[in-house]
Amino acid sequence: MVDLIPRRNSPSPGLLGQRKPLGVVGGMGSLATAKFLEVLARKSRVERDQDHIPFVCLSAPNIPDRSQAILIGSDAPLRQILERAYWLEKAGCGAIAIPCNTAHLWATEIKQALSAQLIDMVEITRQVVEDSRGSEARTLRSISLGTSASMQHGLYAGLNNNNFGKQFSRSLTELQHEAVRIITDVKSGNVIDAQDKLTRLVHAARSFDPDKIILACSELSAICGDLADDNDIVDPINILADACIDWWTAGSHAFGHVGQAIMG
Amino acid sequence: MVDLIPRRNSPSPGLLGQRKPLGVVGGMGSLATAKFLEVLARKSRVERDQDHIPFVCLSAPNIPDRSQAILIGSDAPLRQILERAYWLEKAGCGAIAIPCNTAHLWATEIKQALSAQLIDMVEITRQVVEDSRGSEARTLRSISLGTSASMQHGLYAGLNNNNFGKQFSRSLTELQHEAVRIITDVKSGNVIDAQDKLTRLVHAARSFDPDKIILACSELSAICGDLADDNDIVDPINILADACIDWWTAGSHAFGHVGQAIMG
Repeated sequence: MVDLIPRRNSPSPGLLGQRKPLGVVGGMGSLATAKFLEVLARKSRVERDQDHIPFVCLSAPNIPDRSQAILIGSDAPLRQILERAYWLEKAGCGAIAIPCNTAHLWATEIKQALSAQLIDMVEITRQVVEDSRGSEARTLRSISLGTSASMQHGLYAGLNNNNFGKQFSRSLTELQHEAVRIITDVKSGNVIDAQDKLTRLVHAARSFDPDKIILACSELSAICGDLADDNDIVDPINILADACIDWWTAGSHAFGHVGQAIMG
Repeated sequence: MVDLIPRRNSPSPGLLGQRKPLGVVGGMGSLATAKFLEVLARKSRVERDQDHIPFVCLSAPNIPDRSQAILIGSDAPLRQILERAYWLEKAGCGAIAIPCNTAHLWATEIKQALSAQLIDMVEITRQVVEDSRGSEARTLRSISLGTSASMQHGLYAGLNNNNFGKQFSRSLTELQHEAVRIITDVKSGNVIDAQDKLTRLVHAARSFDPDKIILACSELSAICGDLADDNDIVDPINILADACIDWWTAGSHAFGHVGQAIMG
Protein backbone atom coordinates (compact mmCIF):
# COMPACT_ATOMS: atom_id res chain seq x y z
CA MET A 1 0.00 0.00 0.00
CA VAL A 2 2.76 2.41 0.94
CA ASP A 3 4.19 2.60 -2.57
CA LEU A 4 0.78 3.54 -3.93
CA ILE A 5 0.68 6.78 -2.01
CA PRO A 6 2.13 9.78 -3.86
CA ARG A 7 4.43 12.02 -1.80
CA ARG A 8 3.01 15.49 -2.30
CA ASN A 9 4.66 18.78 -1.35
CA SER A 10 1.43 20.68 -0.86
CA PRO A 11 -2.03 19.74 0.34
CA SER A 12 -4.14 18.17 -2.38
CA PRO A 13 -7.93 18.19 -2.70
CA GLY A 14 -7.84 14.57 -1.55
CA LEU A 15 -5.74 15.51 1.43
CA LEU A 16 -7.72 18.53 2.55
CA GLY A 17 -11.05 18.02 0.90
CA GLN A 18 -11.93 20.51 -1.82
CA ARG A 19 -11.25 23.60 0.29
CA LYS A 20 -8.09 25.52 1.02
CA PRO A 21 -7.28 25.18 4.74
CA LEU A 22 -6.71 27.93 7.27
CA GLY A 23 -3.07 28.91 7.72
CA VAL A 24 -1.91 29.76 11.23
CA VAL A 25 1.34 31.62 11.89
CA GLY A 26 2.18 30.23 15.32
CA GLY A 27 4.90 30.63 17.92
CA MET A 28 4.07 34.14 19.09
CA GLY A 29 3.95 32.58 21.63
CA SER A 30 3.58 28.81 21.54
CA LEU A 31 1.11 28.57 24.46
CA ALA A 32 -1.06 31.27 22.86
CA THR A 33 -1.02 29.34 19.57
CA ALA A 34 -2.26 26.20 21.35
CA LYS A 35 -4.98 28.23 23.12
CA PHE A 36 -6.17 29.63 19.78
CA LEU A 37 -6.38 26.12 18.28
CA GLU A 38 -8.26 24.90 21.38
CA VAL A 39 -10.78 27.74 21.11
CA LEU A 40 -11.12 27.12 17.35
CA ALA A 41 -11.95 23.45 18.04
CA ARG A 42 -14.36 24.23 20.90
CA LYS A 43 -16.22 26.97 19.02
CA SER A 44 -16.60 24.99 15.81
CA ARG A 45 -19.50 23.10 17.42
CA VAL A 46 -19.35 20.16 15.02
CA GLU A 47 -20.48 16.61 15.67
CA ARG A 48 -17.55 14.69 14.19
CA ASP A 49 -13.76 14.96 13.90
CA GLN A 50 -14.13 15.15 10.13
CA ASP A 51 -16.19 18.37 10.27
CA HIS A 52 -13.56 20.51 12.01
CA ILE A 53 -11.80 23.30 10.14
CA PRO A 54 -8.67 22.02 8.36
CA PHE A 55 -5.57 24.05 9.11
CA VAL A 56 -1.82 24.14 8.72
CA CYS A 57 -0.06 25.70 11.71
CA LEU A 58 3.56 26.70 11.15
CA SER A 59 5.18 27.43 14.50
CA ALA A 60 8.74 28.56 13.84
CA PRO A 61 9.19 30.66 16.97
CA ASN A 62 12.65 32.02 16.15
CA ILE A 63 11.13 35.43 15.37
CA PRO A 64 12.67 38.44 17.14
CA ASP A 65 10.59 39.80 20.02
CA ARG A 66 7.87 41.90 18.40
CA SER A 67 7.50 44.41 21.20
CA GLN A 68 11.23 45.08 21.57
CA ALA A 69 11.67 45.45 17.79
CA ILE A 70 8.86 47.98 17.51
CA LEU A 71 10.14 49.98 20.47
CA ILE A 72 13.52 50.39 18.71
CA GLY A 73 11.92 51.02 15.31
CA SER A 74 12.96 47.68 13.78
CA ASP A 75 10.88 45.76 11.21
CA ALA A 76 12.93 42.57 11.64
CA PRO A 77 9.98 40.49 12.89
CA LEU A 78 7.82 41.55 9.92
CA ARG A 79 10.18 39.87 7.48
CA GLN A 80 10.02 36.61 9.39
CA ILE A 81 6.27 36.78 9.88
CA LEU A 82 5.86 37.27 6.12
CA GLU A 83 8.21 34.35 5.37
CA ARG A 84 5.95 32.12 7.46
CA ALA A 85 2.78 33.49 5.92
CA TYR A 86 4.20 33.01 2.40
CA TRP A 87 5.11 29.45 3.29
CA LEU A 88 1.51 28.81 4.41
CA GLU A 89 0.20 30.39 1.18
CA LYS A 90 2.54 28.16 -0.83
CA ALA A 91 1.29 25.16 1.16
CA GLY A 92 -2.19 25.95 -0.15
CA CYS A 93 -3.78 27.89 2.71
CA GLY A 94 -6.72 30.11 1.75
CA ALA A 95 -6.54 32.56 4.64
CA ILE A 96 -3.99 33.44 7.31
CA ALA A 97 -4.57 33.88 11.03
CA ILE A 98 -1.91 35.26 13.38
CA PRO A 99 -2.83 34.74 17.06
CA CYS A 100 -0.56 37.56 18.26
CA ASN A 101 -1.88 41.07 18.90
CA THR A 102 1.49 42.87 18.74
CA ALA A 103 2.25 41.40 15.30
CA HIS A 104 -0.85 43.21 14.05
CA LEU A 105 0.99 46.52 14.35
CA TRP A 106 2.24 45.37 10.90
CA ALA A 107 -1.22 44.27 9.69
CA THR A 108 -1.22 46.81 6.83
CA GLU A 109 2.14 45.60 5.50
CA ILE A 110 1.11 41.95 5.91
CA LYS A 111 -2.14 42.48 3.99
CA GLN A 112 -0.28 44.29 1.20
CA ALA A 113 2.24 41.44 0.95
CA LEU A 114 -0.12 38.45 1.00
CA SER A 115 -2.24 37.00 -1.77
CA ALA A 116 -4.35 35.16 0.79
CA GLN A 117 -6.67 37.04 3.13
CA LEU A 118 -5.30 38.01 6.55
CA ILE A 119 -8.08 37.46 9.07
CA ASP A 120 -7.20 40.63 10.99
CA MET A 121 -7.69 39.86 14.68
CA VAL A 122 -7.22 43.44 15.84
CA GLU A 123 -9.45 45.03 13.20
CA ILE A 124 -12.25 42.56 13.94
CA THR A 125 -11.83 42.95 17.71
CA ARG A 126 -12.01 46.74 17.43
CA GLN A 127 -15.21 46.36 15.42
CA VAL A 128 -16.71 43.98 17.98
CA VAL A 129 -15.89 46.39 20.82
CA GLU A 130 -17.30 49.37 18.95
CA ASP A 131 -20.44 47.46 17.98
CA SER A 132 -20.92 46.43 21.61
CA ARG A 133 -22.04 49.96 22.40
CA GLY A 134 -23.91 50.62 19.19
CA SER A 135 -24.66 54.32 18.76
CA GLU A 136 -22.90 55.09 22.05
CA ALA A 137 -19.61 53.68 20.78
CA ARG A 138 -17.96 57.10 20.94
CA THR A 139 -18.33 57.14 24.71
CA LEU A 140 -17.03 53.62 25.27
CA ARG A 141 -14.61 53.32 28.17
CA SER A 142 -12.13 50.52 27.54
CA ILE A 143 -8.86 49.46 29.14
CA SER A 144 -6.38 47.51 26.99
CA LEU A 145 -3.80 45.26 28.63
CA GLY A 146 -0.93 44.14 26.41
CA THR A 147 2.72 44.55 25.46
CA SER A 148 4.53 47.88 25.78
CA ALA A 149 4.66 48.25 22.00
CA SER A 150 0.94 47.52 21.58
CA MET A 151 0.07 50.09 24.21
CA GLN A 152 2.52 52.79 23.13
CA HIS A 153 1.49 52.44 19.48
CA GLY A 154 -2.20 52.43 20.31
CA LEU A 155 -3.08 48.99 18.92
CA TYR A 156 -6.57 49.33 20.40
CA ALA A 157 -6.56 53.12 20.62
CA GLY A 158 -9.55 55.05 19.35
CA LEU A 159 -11.66 53.05 21.77
CA ASN A 160 -11.68 56.13 23.99
CA ASN A 161 -9.34 55.03 26.75
CA ASN A 162 -9.26 58.69 27.72
CA ASN A 163 -12.73 58.94 29.21
CA PHE A 164 -11.54 58.09 32.70
CA GLY A 165 -10.40 61.58 33.73
CA LYS A 166 -7.03 63.14 34.34
CA GLN A 167 -6.09 61.03 37.35
CA PHE A 168 -6.33 57.82 35.33
CA SER A 169 -3.30 57.98 33.04
CA ARG A 170 -0.83 57.20 35.84
CA SER A 171 -2.99 54.31 37.06
CA LEU A 172 -3.32 52.99 33.50
CA THR A 173 0.47 52.99 33.19
CA GLU A 174 0.72 50.93 36.38
CA LEU A 175 -1.91 48.46 35.14
CA GLN A 176 -0.07 48.08 31.85
CA HIS A 177 3.30 47.60 33.54
CA GLU A 178 1.77 44.74 35.53
CA ALA A 179 0.32 43.29 32.30
CA VAL A 180 3.83 43.24 30.82
CA ARG A 181 5.13 41.42 33.91
CA ILE A 182 2.35 38.82 33.54
CA ILE A 183 3.11 38.35 29.83
CA THR A 184 6.77 37.75 30.74
CA ASP A 185 5.68 35.19 33.37
CA VAL A 186 3.63 33.29 30.77
CA LYS A 187 6.43 33.29 28.21
CA SER A 188 8.85 31.96 30.82
CA GLY A 189 6.47 29.21 31.97
CA ASN A 190 5.23 30.69 35.26
CA VAL A 191 1.61 30.09 34.31
CA ILE A 192 0.14 29.56 37.79
CA ASP A 193 1.65 32.79 39.13
CA ALA A 194 0.54 34.58 35.98
CA GLN A 195 -3.07 33.40 36.37
CA ASP A 196 -3.23 34.70 39.94
CA LYS A 197 -1.70 38.02 38.90
CA LEU A 198 -4.10 38.38 35.95
CA THR A 199 -7.10 37.85 38.21
CA ARG A 200 -5.82 40.61 40.51
CA LEU A 201 -5.00 42.88 37.56
CA VAL A 202 -8.49 42.56 36.10
CA HIS A 203 -9.93 43.28 39.57
CA ALA A 204 -7.79 46.44 39.76
CA ALA A 205 -8.81 47.50 36.24
CA ARG A 206 -12.48 47.04 37.15
CA SER A 207 -12.09 49.58 39.97
CA PHE A 208 -12.12 52.23 37.20
CA ASP A 209 -15.51 50.95 36.00
CA PRO A 210 -14.55 50.40 32.34
CA ASP A 211 -17.13 49.15 29.84
CA LYS A 212 -14.59 46.73 28.41
CA ILE A 213 -11.21 45.28 29.40
CA ILE A 214 -9.33 44.10 26.30
CA LEU A 215 -6.85 41.23 26.72
CA ALA A 216 -4.60 42.81 24.10
CA CYS A 217 -1.86 40.15 24.25
CA SER A 218 -2.52 36.51 23.34
CA GLU A 219 -0.39 35.36 26.31
CA LEU A 220 -3.11 36.84 28.53
CA SER A 221 -5.79 35.04 26.48
CA ALA A 222 -3.81 31.82 26.91
CA ILE A 223 -4.16 31.90 30.70
CA CYS A 224 -7.40 33.84 31.25
CA GLY A 225 -9.56 30.73 31.72
CA ASP A 226 -13.16 31.54 32.67
CA LEU A 227 -12.41 35.29 32.79
CA ALA A 228 -13.06 35.36 29.05
CA ASP A 229 -16.70 34.50 29.78
CA ASP A 230 -17.30 37.74 31.71
CA ASN A 231 -19.28 40.34 29.77
CA ASP A 232 -16.73 43.11 30.30
CA ILE A 233 -13.75 41.03 29.10
CA VAL A 234 -12.80 41.17 25.40
CA ASP A 235 -10.61 38.24 24.32
CA PRO A 236 -9.26 38.81 20.77
CA ILE A 237 -8.31 35.12 20.53
CA ASN A 238 -11.98 34.17 20.96
CA ILE A 239 -12.95 36.77 18.37
CA LEU A 240 -10.29 35.53 15.93
CA ALA A 241 -11.60 31.97 16.28
CA ASP A 242 -15.15 33.17 15.53
CA ALA A 243 -13.87 35.05 12.47
CA CYS A 244 -11.99 31.98 11.19
CA ILE A 245 -15.13 29.87 11.61
CA ASP A 246 -17.13 32.55 9.75
CA TRP A 247 -14.51 32.53 6.95
CA TRP A 248 -14.73 28.74 6.68
CA THR A 249 -18.53 28.67 6.85
CA ALA A 250 -18.90 31.38 4.21
CA GLY A 251 -16.60 29.39 1.93
CA SER A 252 -18.64 26.26 2.57
CA HIS A 253 -21.74 28.05 1.37
CA ALA A 254 -19.88 29.55 -1.57
CA PHE A 255 -18.33 26.25 -2.50
CA GLY A 256 -21.39 24.90 -4.20
CA HIS A 257 -21.22 27.83 -6.60
CA VAL A 258 -17.53 28.52 -7.02
CA GLY A 259 -15.98 25.24 -5.99
CA GLN A 260 -13.39 25.19 -8.73
CA ALA A 261 -12.22 28.66 -7.81
CA ILE A 262 -11.41 27.73 -4.25
CA MET A 263 -10.12 24.20 -4.66
CA GLY A 264 -6.89 23.50 -2.79
CA MET B 1 10.69 45.01 1.67
CA VAL B 2 8.07 42.55 0.57
CA ASP B 3 9.66 41.93 -2.82
CA LEU B 4 12.93 41.03 -1.14
CA ILE B 5 11.44 38.00 0.59
CA PRO B 6 11.66 34.75 -1.39
CA ARG B 7 8.51 32.64 -1.44
CA ARG B 8 9.66 29.21 -0.33
CA ASN B 9 7.66 25.99 -0.55
CA SER B 10 9.40 24.28 2.34
CA PRO B 11 10.91 25.49 5.58
CA SER B 12 14.43 26.87 5.15
CA PRO B 13 17.23 27.06 7.71
CA GLY B 14 16.45 30.76 7.99
CA LEU B 15 12.80 30.04 8.56
CA LEU B 16 13.19 27.27 11.12
CA GLY B 17 16.69 27.75 12.39
CA GLN B 18 19.14 24.99 11.50
CA ARG B 19 16.99 22.15 12.75
CA LYS B 20 14.20 20.18 11.16
CA PRO B 21 10.95 20.88 13.03
CA LEU B 22 8.57 18.42 14.62
CA GLY B 23 5.71 17.33 12.37
CA VAL B 24 2.31 16.82 13.98
CA VAL B 25 -0.47 14.88 12.25
CA GLY B 26 -3.49 16.62 13.78
CA GLY B 27 -7.25 16.39 13.56
CA MET B 28 -7.73 13.07 15.36
CA GLY B 29 -9.42 14.91 17.02
CA SER B 30 -8.92 18.67 16.78
CA LEU B 31 -9.36 19.35 20.50
CA ALA B 32 -6.85 16.61 21.34
CA THR B 33 -4.37 18.13 18.88
CA ALA B 34 -4.68 21.51 20.62
CA LYS B 35 -4.23 19.85 24.02
CA PHE B 36 -1.05 18.13 22.81
CA LEU B 37 0.37 21.45 21.56
CA GLU B 38 -0.55 23.10 24.87
CA VAL B 39 1.21 20.39 26.86
CA LEU B 40 4.22 20.60 24.53
CA ALA B 41 4.46 24.35 25.17
CA ARG B 42 3.97 24.02 28.95
CA LYS B 43 6.47 21.19 29.36
CA SER B 44 9.19 22.80 27.25
CA ARG B 45 10.08 24.99 30.23
CA VAL B 46 11.88 27.62 28.19
CA GLU B 47 12.35 31.28 29.05
CA ARG B 48 11.53 32.87 25.69
CA ASP B 49 9.15 32.40 22.75
CA GLN B 50 12.17 31.80 20.50
CA ASP B 51 13.30 28.73 22.48
CA HIS B 52 10.13 26.67 21.97
CA ILE B 53 10.16 23.60 19.73
CA PRO B 54 9.40 24.51 16.11
CA PHE B 55 6.64 22.44 14.57
CA VAL B 56 4.36 22.11 11.59
CA CYS B 57 0.91 20.80 12.47
CA LEU B 58 -1.19 19.56 9.56
CA SER B 59 -4.78 19.15 10.71
CA ALA B 60 -6.76 17.78 7.77
CA PRO B 61 -9.45 16.02 9.79
CA ASN B 62 -11.28 14.41 6.86
CA ILE B 63 -9.85 11.02 7.84
CA PRO B 64 -12.34 8.15 8.25
CA ASP B 65 -13.10 7.24 11.86
CA ARG B 66 -10.15 5.12 13.01
CA SER B 67 -12.08 2.95 15.44
CA GLN B 68 -14.94 2.15 13.04
CA ALA B 69 -12.48 1.32 10.23
CA ILE B 70 -10.48 -1.08 12.38
CA LEU B 71 -13.64 -2.79 13.65
CA ILE B 72 -14.66 -3.57 10.05
CA GLY B 73 -11.11 -4.51 9.01
CA SER B 74 -10.53 -1.40 6.85
CA ASP B 75 -7.14 0.31 6.45
CA ALA B 76 -8.69 3.42 4.84
CA PRO B 77 -7.49 5.77 7.60
CA LEU B 78 -3.92 4.49 7.31
CA ARG B 79 -3.64 5.73 3.75
CA GLN B 80 -4.80 9.20 4.77
CA ILE B 81 -2.60 9.30 7.88
CA LEU B 82 0.41 8.40 5.70
CA GLU B 83 -0.48 11.09 3.14
CA ARG B 84 -0.38 13.66 5.94
CA ALA B 85 2.85 12.28 7.40
CA TYR B 86 4.47 12.29 3.93
CA TRP B 87 3.38 15.86 3.46
CA LEU B 88 5.03 16.81 6.76
CA GLU B 89 8.20 14.95 5.75
CA LYS B 90 8.22 16.80 2.42
CA ALA B 91 7.76 20.06 4.33
CA GLY B 92 11.03 19.33 6.11
CA CYS B 93 9.91 17.80 9.40
CA GLY B 94 12.50 15.63 11.15
CA ALA B 95 10.15 13.52 13.25
CA ILE B 96 6.41 12.83 13.28
CA ALA B 97 4.06 12.85 16.27
CA ILE B 98 0.46 11.61 16.05
CA PRO B 99 -1.57 12.61 19.13
CA CYS B 100 -4.13 9.83 18.60
CA ASN B 101 -3.89 6.48 20.39
CA THR B 102 -6.13 4.50 18.03
CA ALA B 103 -4.06 5.53 14.99
CA HIS B 104 -1.13 3.75 16.63
CA LEU B 105 -2.77 0.41 15.87
CA TRP B 106 -1.03 1.10 12.49
CA ALA B 107 2.26 2.21 14.09
CA THR B 108 4.23 -0.63 12.47
CA GLU B 109 2.99 0.26 8.97
CA ILE B 110 3.56 3.98 9.59
CA LYS B 111 7.15 3.41 10.73
CA GLN B 112 7.84 1.22 7.71
CA ALA B 113 6.44 3.87 5.37
CA LEU B 114 8.16 6.96 6.78
CA SER B 115 11.70 8.18 6.31
CA ALA B 116 11.34 10.41 9.37
CA GLN B 117 11.11 8.91 12.85
CA LEU B 118 7.64 8.28 14.26
CA ILE B 119 7.69 9.26 17.93
CA ASP B 120 5.55 6.28 18.93
CA MET B 121 3.22 7.49 21.67
CA VAL B 122 1.88 4.04 22.52
CA GLU B 123 5.24 2.28 22.57
CA ILE B 124 6.73 4.96 24.83
CA THR B 125 3.66 4.98 27.09
CA ARG B 126 3.80 1.19 27.46
CA GLN B 127 7.48 1.50 28.42
CA VAL B 128 6.73 4.23 30.96
CA VAL B 129 3.98 2.13 32.54
CA GLU B 130 6.14 -0.97 32.67
CA ASP B 131 9.08 0.98 34.09
CA SER B 132 6.81 2.43 36.77
CA ARG B 133 6.81 -0.92 38.52
CA GLY B 134 10.42 -1.85 37.83
CA SER B 135 11.06 -5.51 38.51
CA GLU B 136 7.42 -5.99 39.51
CA ALA B 137 6.18 -4.89 36.09
CA ARG B 138 4.77 -8.36 35.38
CA THR B 139 2.28 -7.98 38.17
CA LEU B 140 1.16 -4.48 37.20
CA ARG B 141 -2.60 -3.99 37.35
CA SER B 142 -3.71 -1.40 34.80
CA ILE B 143 -7.04 -0.34 33.35
CA SER B 144 -7.06 1.22 29.87
CA LEU B 145 -9.90 3.50 28.81
CA GLY B 146 -10.16 4.22 25.09
CA THR B 147 -11.97 3.53 21.83
CA SER B 148 -13.60 0.17 21.09
CA ALA B 149 -10.93 -0.63 18.50
CA SER B 150 -8.08 0.23 20.86
CA MET B 151 -9.54 -1.98 23.57
CA GLN B 152 -10.54 -4.90 21.35
CA HIS B 153 -7.15 -4.91 19.63
CA GLY B 154 -5.26 -4.61 22.89
CA LEU B 155 -3.47 -1.33 22.20
CA TYR B 156 -2.20 -1.31 25.77
CA ALA B 157 -2.55 -5.04 26.36
CA GLY B 158 0.32 -6.93 27.92
CA LEU B 159 0.09 -4.57 30.86
CA ASN B 160 -1.62 -7.38 32.74
CA ASN B 161 -5.18 -6.10 32.75
CA ASN B 162 -6.13 -9.64 33.76
CA ASN B 163 -4.92 -9.52 37.34
CA PHE B 164 -8.26 -8.35 38.68
CA GLY B 165 -9.94 -11.75 38.96
CA LYS B 166 -12.75 -13.41 37.05
CA GLN B 167 -15.50 -11.03 38.13
CA PHE B 168 -13.69 -8.06 36.60
CA SER B 169 -14.08 -8.63 32.86
CA ARG B 170 -17.76 -7.67 32.83
CA SER B 171 -17.06 -4.55 34.92
CA LEU B 172 -14.17 -3.63 32.63
CA THR B 173 -16.50 -3.86 29.64
CA GLU B 174 -18.91 -1.47 31.36
CA LEU B 175 -16.10 0.97 32.17
CA GLN B 176 -14.92 0.90 28.57
CA HIS B 177 -18.43 1.39 27.18
CA GLU B 178 -18.71 4.53 29.32
CA ALA B 179 -15.30 5.68 28.04
CA VAL B 180 -16.59 5.37 24.47
CA ARG B 181 -19.65 7.46 25.38
CA ILE B 182 -17.37 10.14 26.87
CA ILE B 183 -15.14 10.15 23.76
CA THR B 184 -18.25 10.66 21.63
CA ASP B 185 -19.31 13.55 23.90
CA VAL B 186 -15.93 15.25 23.45
CA LYS B 187 -15.95 14.81 19.66
CA SER B 188 -19.44 16.32 19.50
CA GLY B 189 -18.52 19.30 21.70
CA ASN B 190 -20.18 18.27 25.00
CA VAL B 191 -16.98 18.94 26.93
CA ILE B 192 -18.51 19.93 30.28
CA ASP B 193 -20.68 16.79 30.44
CA ALA B 194 -17.70 14.72 29.35
CA GLN B 195 -15.49 16.11 32.11
CA ASP B 196 -18.04 15.23 34.80
CA LYS B 197 -18.49 11.74 33.34
CA LEU B 198 -14.72 11.17 33.15
CA THR B 199 -14.32 12.12 36.82
CA ARG B 200 -17.00 9.56 37.75
CA LEU B 201 -15.51 6.94 35.41
CA VAL B 202 -12.06 7.28 36.96
CA HIS B 203 -13.64 7.02 40.43
CA ALA B 204 -15.39 3.81 39.34
CA ALA B 205 -12.18 2.39 37.85
CA ARG B 206 -10.33 3.16 41.10
CA SER B 207 -12.78 0.93 42.99
CA PHE B 208 -10.87 -2.02 41.47
CA ASP B 209 -7.63 -0.70 43.00
CA PRO B 210 -5.57 -0.62 39.78
CA ASP B 211 -1.94 0.49 39.85
CA LYS B 212 -2.49 2.58 36.74
CA ILE B 213 -5.43 3.94 34.76
CA ILE B 214 -4.39 4.68 31.17
CA LEU B 215 -6.24 7.45 29.30
CA ALA B 216 -5.93 5.48 26.07
CA CYS B 217 -7.76 8.00 23.86
CA SER B 218 -6.47 11.54 23.32
CA GLU B 219 -10.04 12.90 23.62
CA LEU B 220 -9.89 11.82 27.28
CA SER B 221 -6.49 13.51 27.66
CA ALA B 222 -7.98 16.66 26.12
CA ILE B 223 -10.52 17.02 28.95
CA CYS B 224 -8.81 15.32 31.90
CA GLY B 225 -7.52 18.56 33.44
CA ASP B 226 -5.82 18.06 36.82
CA LEU B 227 -6.61 14.32 36.77
CA ALA B 228 -3.42 13.84 34.73
CA ASP B 229 -1.44 14.96 37.81
CA ASP B 230 -2.62 12.00 39.90
CA ASN B 231 0.02 9.30 40.35
CA ASP B 232 -2.24 6.50 39.16
CA ILE B 233 -3.29 8.27 35.94
CA VAL B 234 -1.24 7.67 32.78
CA ASP B 235 -1.77 10.33 30.10
CA PRO B 236 -0.13 9.29 26.80
CA ILE B 237 -0.41 12.89 25.51
CA ASN B 238 1.81 14.05 28.38
CA ILE B 239 4.23 11.23 27.65
CA LEU B 240 4.28 12.04 23.92
CA ALA B 241 5.09 15.68 24.70
CA ASP B 242 7.98 14.60 26.94
CA ALA B 243 9.27 12.31 24.18
CA CYS B 244 9.06 15.11 21.59
CA ILE B 245 11.01 17.42 23.92
CA ASP B 246 13.59 14.64 24.44
CA TRP B 247 13.86 14.22 20.64
CA TRP B 248 14.40 17.94 20.18
CA THR B 249 16.86 18.24 23.06
CA ALA B 250 18.91 15.25 21.88
CA GLY B 251 19.12 16.86 18.44
CA SER B 252 20.22 20.12 20.00
CA HIS B 253 23.13 18.34 21.63
CA ALA B 254 23.89 16.41 18.46
CA PHE B 255 23.67 19.48 16.30
CA GLY B 256 27.16 20.70 17.10
CA HIS B 257 28.51 17.48 15.63
CA VAL B 258 26.14 16.60 12.80
CA GLY B 259 24.55 19.95 12.04
CA GLN B 260 24.80 19.59 8.28
CA ALA B 261 23.12 16.20 8.40
CA ILE B 262 20.02 17.52 10.14
CA MET B 263 19.69 20.95 8.58
CA GLY B 264 16.18 21.80 7.40
